[in-house]
Amino acid sequence: MFKLYYAPATCALASHITLAEAGADYATERIDFKVNQQNSPDYLKINPKGRVPALVTDRGILTETPAMLAYIAQSFPQAGLAPLDDPFAFAQVQSFNSYLCATLHVAHAHKLRGARWATEESSFADMKRMIPKSVGACFTLIERNMLRGPWVMGESYTICDPYLYTVALWLEGDGVDLASLPKVADHRKRMSERPAVQRVLAEENA
Amino acid sequence: MFKLYYAPATCALASHITLAEAGADYATERIDFKVNQQNSPDYLKINPKGRVPALVTDRGILTETPAMLAYIAQSFPQAGLAPLDDPFAFAQVQSFNSYLCATLHVAHAHKLRGARWATEESSFADMKRMIPKSVGACFTLIERNMLRGPWVMGESYTICDPYLYTVALWLEGDGVDLASLPKVADHRKRMSERPAVQRVLAEENA
Repeated sequence: MFKLYYAPATCALASHITLAEAGADYATERIDFKVNQQNSPDYLKINPKGRVPALVTDRGILTETPAMLAYIAQSFPQAGLAPLDDPFAFAQVQSFNSYLCATLHVAHAHKLRGARWATEESSFADMKRMIPKSVGACFTLIERNMLRGPWVMGESYTICDPYLYTVALWLEGDGVDLASLPKVADHRKRMSERPAVQRVLAEENA
Repeated sequence: MFKLYYAPATCALASHITLAEAGADYATERIDFKVNQQNSPDYLKINPKGRVPALVTDRGILTETPAMLAYIAQSFPQAGLAPLDDPFAFAQVQSFNSYLCATLHVAHAHKLRGARWATEESSFADMKRMIPKSVGACFTLIERNMLRGPWVMGESYTICDPYLYTVALWLEGDGVDLASLPKVADHRKRMSERPAVQRVLAEENA
């Protein structure tokens, strides 16, 4: 039994979809960013970083999307969500997910979370102006060099796919033209047709 | 046979130390940041991201430190660099390394790499002023909540340790007071005494 702490429209969606795809027995708890619940004393006991997602397991609590995704894949090997028997292929999966976490998501975060790295309103405005370019550059690299198609790793659906789908949902809001990214757009459409994705989005958007 | 592309004083040191600790057969090639070699056409064929590290293997090229570290640990299981037979313990290792990659290293990068996220000199200056606080907050979290001691994961040395050591070498340059971080300071000293670390530093500093 797992419990996922999430907030809608965040990277927690990747883990949420993966739990559903794995057929895991899980519950969810929504954290309300509008009242800064992620920094409440109760939630900081779950995740001292004050962020989502966090995954409560029988062994303890995990944070950081790439680690959680790999753990779900390893916990449900029958779901075939990662190439667990091939260390190099697994490393390629991990490399892709690390790029989303440490580069793409970080670029996106400069739109609304500039206070993590600066203090002046002029800096925040400067960061926001750059979002279409900085996030767009990440997606261009994915389009040209990383997304094999139809799934990220080629013929096999893996834990890279819900993560790419999650961050690709931010494209319009970040001012990036989806028409310039045909492979990413096709991937997003393909993901949106999966029953597990539809179930999870219906819950998060309820 | 592996080949590691690195630059001195970068996060590539973590993979370099891990190759040495694993007893891997490897070569290195230094990338000269002073002449922007990381964005040269030849290097962009190795790593289209224009960053170090990159690890050339018999199967292909890997990038992203957390993925590379886990791959080296899986390729040399006899070295015991990660709890490969315990998915939850492995996930904890991955979670720690993901935090260093996506939060701590990103905070640090705002000192000299602000042009990734903004364009104005005033923004860069603002970012630089915040480095002691933002990087310091990451290390305080590590000191209080993450570093078990004597090694990151407790009694066993893992791939978390060379990565923490690598980023802890940046503390003074980032204006963070090491005296406020006794566990991190002890860890750094303990790491600096390992023969593999001394060999690798001697090569990188030559």
